Amino acid sequence: MPFTLEEIEAHLERLEGWELEEGRWIVRKYVFSSFMRGIAFVDEVAGISEAFNHHPFITIDYKTVTLRLTSWDEGGITAVDIKEAQQYNEAFEHMRSED
Amino acid sequence: MPFTLEEIEAHLERLEGWELEEGRWIVRKYVFSSFMRGIAFVDEVAGISEAFNHHPFITIDYKTVTLRLTSWDEGGITAVDIKEAQQYNEAFEHMRSED
Repeated sequence: MPFTLEEIEAHLERLEGWELEEGRWIVRKYVFSSFMRGIAFVDEVAGISEAFNHHPFITIDYKTVTLRLTSWDEGGITAVDIKEAQQYNEAFEHMRSED
Repeated sequence: MPFTLEEIEAHLERLEGWELEEGRWIVRKYVFSSFMRGIAFVDEVAGISEAFNHHPFITIDYKTVTLRLTSWDEGGITAVDIKEAQQYNEAFEHMRSED
């Protein structure tokens, strides 16, 4: 069962930078100091996604990396999306601490 | 000076898989055997883009990587876009030969 809108909003309050889009995606834009730092982040994101076996839709627009998550098979946002978004945020914070 | 539409079409005839989009982008979708092969390709694309100092718009949708190129400062498609697209194709062929 996917989360209700209220449940999603409660989770997003504790998930820095993530927003609900069209009621069925959660989305965050991450901005980096260079194109290659963004690519290094995408490599981290890929490793996390493979571990979850759950893959975000990724766009790279120069120094901006955007991640979109949803659980297609559940028809909405589930705990997996929220947990994975938390790990992306942790990877981002870790990279930022190295800048 | 950007290429004319006729010039772009002549170049695209020799550039496998690339198409003109909205008159000002050239676009190609590359499909891989796995998500991680697509990510490995994006790493190759990143290296080429840094060498040209000219960065494509990239999307990663599971095993499909889409690249879009344009020369913003010239207001259209230029020789740089065509040369870079050729190098992406060569990198793709090289990866495919390893599959």
